[in-house]
Amino acid sequence: MTQTRLDKLNASLSTGGLDSVILNPGPTLKYLTGLNFHLMERPIVLFFAKDQTPALVLPELELQKVANLPYKLQVFSYPENPAEWDAAFRKAAQSLNLDGKRIGVESRQLRLLEFRYVKNAAPEADFPDAGDALSQLRLRKDRTEVEAMRRAVQIAQSALEATIPLIKIGMTEKELSAELMMQLFKHGSDPEMPFSPIVSSGPNSANPHASPSDRKLQAGDLLVVDWGAAHDGYISDLTRTFAVGEVDAEYEKIHKITQEANAAGRAASKPGVPCANVDKAARDVIEKAGYGKYFTHRTGHGIGMEGHEDPYMRGDNMQLLELGMAFTVEPGIYLAGKNGVRIEDNVVITETGADVLSDMPREMRVVG
Amino acid sequence: MTQTRLDKLNASLSTGGLDSVILNPGPTLKYLTGLNFHLMERPIVLFFAKDQTPALVLPELELQKVANLPYKLQVFSYPENPAEWDAAFRKAAQSLNLDGKRIGVESRQLRLLEFRYVKNAAPEADFPDAGDALSQLRLRKDRTEVEAMRRAVQIAQSALEATIPLIKIGMTEKELSAELMMQLFKHGSDPEMPFSPIVSSGPNSANPHASPSDRKLQAGDLLVVDWGAAHDGYISDLTRTFAVGEVDAEYEKIHKITQEANAAGRAASKPGVPCANVDKAARDVIEKAGYGKYFTHRTGHGIGMEGHEDPYMRGDNMQLLELGMAFTVEPGIYLAGKNGVRIEDNVVITETGADVLSDMPREMRVVG
Repeated sequence: MTQTRLDKLNASLSTGGLDSVILNPGPTLKYLTGLNFHLMERPIVLFFAKDQTPALVLPELELQKVANLPYKLQVFSYPENPAEWDAAFRKAAQSLNLDGKRIGVESRQLRLLEFRYVKNAAPEADFPDAGDALSQLRLRKDRTEVEAMRRAVQIAQSALEATIPLIKIGMTEKELSAELMMQLFKHGSDPEMPFSPIVSSGPNSANPHASPSDRKLQAGDLLVVDWGAAHDGYISDLTRTFAVGEVDAEYEKIHKITQEANAAGRAASKPGVPCANVDKAARDVIEKAGYGKYFTHRTGHGIGMEGHEDPYMRGDNMQLLELGMAFTVEPGIYLAGKNGVRIEDNVVITETGADVLSDMPREMRVVG
Repeated sequence: MTQTRLDKLNASLSTGGLDSVILNPGPTLKYLTGLNFHLMERPIVLFFAKDQTPALVLPELELQKVANLPYKLQVFSYPENPAEWDAAFRKAAQSLNLDGKRIGVESRQLRLLEFRYVKNAAPEADFPDAGDALSQLRLRKDRTEVEAMRRAVQIAQSALEATIPLIKIGMTEKELSAELMMQLFKHGSDPEMPFSPIVSSGPNSANPHASPSDRKLQAGDLLVVDWGAAHDGYISDLTRTFAVGEVDAEYEKIHKITQEANAAGRAASKPGVPCANVDKAARDVIEKAGYGKYFTHRTGHGIGMEGHEDPYMRGDNMQLLELGMAFTVEPGIYLAGKNGVRIEDNVVITETGADVLSDMPREMRVVG
């Protein structure tokens, strides 16, 4: 499998007009090579050049991770003393004769730390952005990947179902978030979680990217739970909004509109359609109901090994949906200073439409 | 508190010969401003220039996070369409008149994504590394920080104590890791964990940075558990090594040597002493016992809001320990192809020596 993916990368270099690419620890490196490192103060870089054996620079203490690989790799390791790191990078760049070449970079992942070591090692090289070319490689999920994502959705859904009966008025957002995390592991999530849950209540629910706080749940709150799980390195990312006891009629109304917008976004998801249409389908529902200016973000983002990846469901994105593309549909209405709603599902494009991986009830359930 | 920290940053710019610094989401930004964002595909950058009101570029959907700050901030927000992001960066750079200036960067944190937007906005600027100057600001922990770290250690220790009775022969490393994660949340860890536990058994324990696998615990294994918790954004990072049933006499021996090396490293930790001495104290014990070449990494790293930060306990690091510096002492012996041991504690430098935050038994306990 890995050799096939590396071959695809090799072929894609010519298309992108690149001589090589460099990758630091992250999802693309893991997808292409199976190598899983954390981003740390010790720089790790894979140099991949067309038709050559890739070269990896890494600290000596990581050598055991590359001892038995199913593909060829040149390894340049360095000891703990940072004064010796430059030499390892120079040797790797020289082994592939990279100076003066076009070396593609993944701007969203590569730090200045790694970049500066590579630039010292190949001072005359150009470093064009290769983010789009690299994201293409893992844009269309195969059956194994979709099944891993389906399992990540199931784990997330079971974990939240087990948490719901424990939600009580007076509980803090942080307490609820910790309980949900426990349930996620109990239900089988990988230890490396995609992100920690957003649990936001009352006025906090009107902030799409709130962090769980010490605020206690109160009757009359909307409660947004945005959570996910991981399975075999693939993730889920879902949102449901609950009513804590009885809520204002307007909150019931915006929940209903958001639910309709979510359904419209899912229905618009099919092959050959621009991403923008998914956004428009969901946004039209909210705009027609008079809440357009309270839907402050795009309708969705790609999902797979990363929480956010291509394709993005934005009004300006004319990229066409294709078989195997996976993404979220997550419209929301946020009444600043009051409450907010978001309903998020995960879908994968099929030959005729979309496979909705998540099936947890979307109507507003009452908790507390 | 935040204004005091920003004042310290302002003063440190002159010392570092810088006109300004830029910060993206991460621990330094959070420490200085209290602002907590995730690293995402939408770039977020704080521009901080001497004696001026800082400028923050961020997506519109994050605006609520900067609505009520206890310090002055200029905010430049951008909508979802990436075509409009450059303009926000240009306005921010212009508002502080940054083009042609010396703009310090944190290479370990800043991605090419943010860097390229800033460089477009200030094409004539220089971008020297300001990592050391910035890490100085949070190098000496104050009492509140130390107490948060102490609590993070206590949570981690209680969680592992609750997990130990559940360890059984035949259980996989992944299962044990998931159980420990559950216990960490049950015992009160923040939802944003510092890192997921390393649980490595048998030959895997000889890989210092192993990821939990499907390998089942077997009698005769050494079992390395490297884990931590978070409290109020501060973390702990500990390691203990267990025997699964009865183990080889050599494994008992390397455990005892590592325990002595750990004690020597802790004893050498006091103000006025170079970091290198802590490394030497621990390494000497292992070298004298004839296992020097199997201790393949430095003796420790700084700890606080990050899992790895300054100061580093490396043989080449002549930096002097000072009151409030916090770090790990974690010698190890790794017999490749066989088994490995690591014992890790967290210490904070006091006026006369070191406050060892962790007190869980270090001798080799038998589990399974």
